[in-house]
Amino acid sequence: MTVKTILSTKGNNVVTIEPTATLEQAIAMLAQHRIGALVVTGAERCVIGILSERDVVRAMWTRGAAAFKEPLSQTMTREVVICVETDAINDIMERMSDGRFRHIPVVAQNRLVGIVSIGDVVKQRLSEMQSESEALRDYIQTA
Amino acid sequence: MTVKTILSTKGNNVVTIEPTATLEQAIAMLAQHRIGALVVTGAERCVIGILSERDVVRAMWTRGAAAFKEPLSQTMTREVVICVETDAINDIMERMSDGRFRHIPVVAQNRLVGIVSIGDVVKQRLSEMQSESEALRDYIQTA
Repeated sequence: MTVKTILSTKGNNVVTIEPTATLEQAIAMLAQHRIGALVVTGAERCVIGILSERDVVRAMWTRGAAAFKEPLSQTMTREVVICVETDAINDIMERMSDGRFRHIPVVAQNRLVGIVSIGDVVKQRLSEMQSESEALRDYIQTA
Repeated sequence: MTVKTILSTKGNNVVTIEPTATLEQAIAMLAQHRIGALVVTGAERCVIGILSERDVVRAMWTRGAAAFKEPLSQTMTREVVICVETDAINDIMERMSDGRFRHIPVVAQNRLVGIVSIGDVVKQRLSEMQSESEALRDYIQTA
């Protein structure tokens, strides 16, 4: 199972934002879309950062309301772990678990083509388990 | 595999907060402990709410800096999905996936005894996969 398997179900849509937008605008986007992270992109959909709920909490803690009007580039995480469609889901799980983050942008030729969240990984695992148990049931019934 | 399996590795420690604490205090605790949610407890460690990073983002969106000084009971999620130690990890995964949340407090006799995060679930799955592949390797070597 690869990242491609997940994207084939959830699609290639990613909510992105520019680094010059304010943190306040980013918070509104996170809340309106009910998502855990925004990918910060530059020209040609290249990934230049990620802004997660955790980044927002940290900014509120360290700078309080002053952070609202700042460009989100002050708050975003710049070292973004990315993946490609052919990466195995197991590897993605390891990267998330080791790095303690929950979103990995998917790139192809340096452009953003999707995002995988820890929720997507768990959903994929549930669907695998469902298939396995159905296959087992069929096998028992026809044996 | 049950919730007990996860708690036996990570322990029973849970970061809790009282409902009368301010949202600002809660934000500081989330940031200092680098965690995604605080369990809000009342007398006798009974669970009365949960405050996640998502709740903080929503409060910042709807009420802005005004929310900082409010008691966090204004912001917390009151309908908390809980579990018990004998619940299967697969069931926990389903509840998280269906409800789109990432933390489930564990209770015993109405008292908080632990918490399971989606990260714990993924970590547990990785450790299972590791054991499976080691068992397979041993089997091949001794066959």
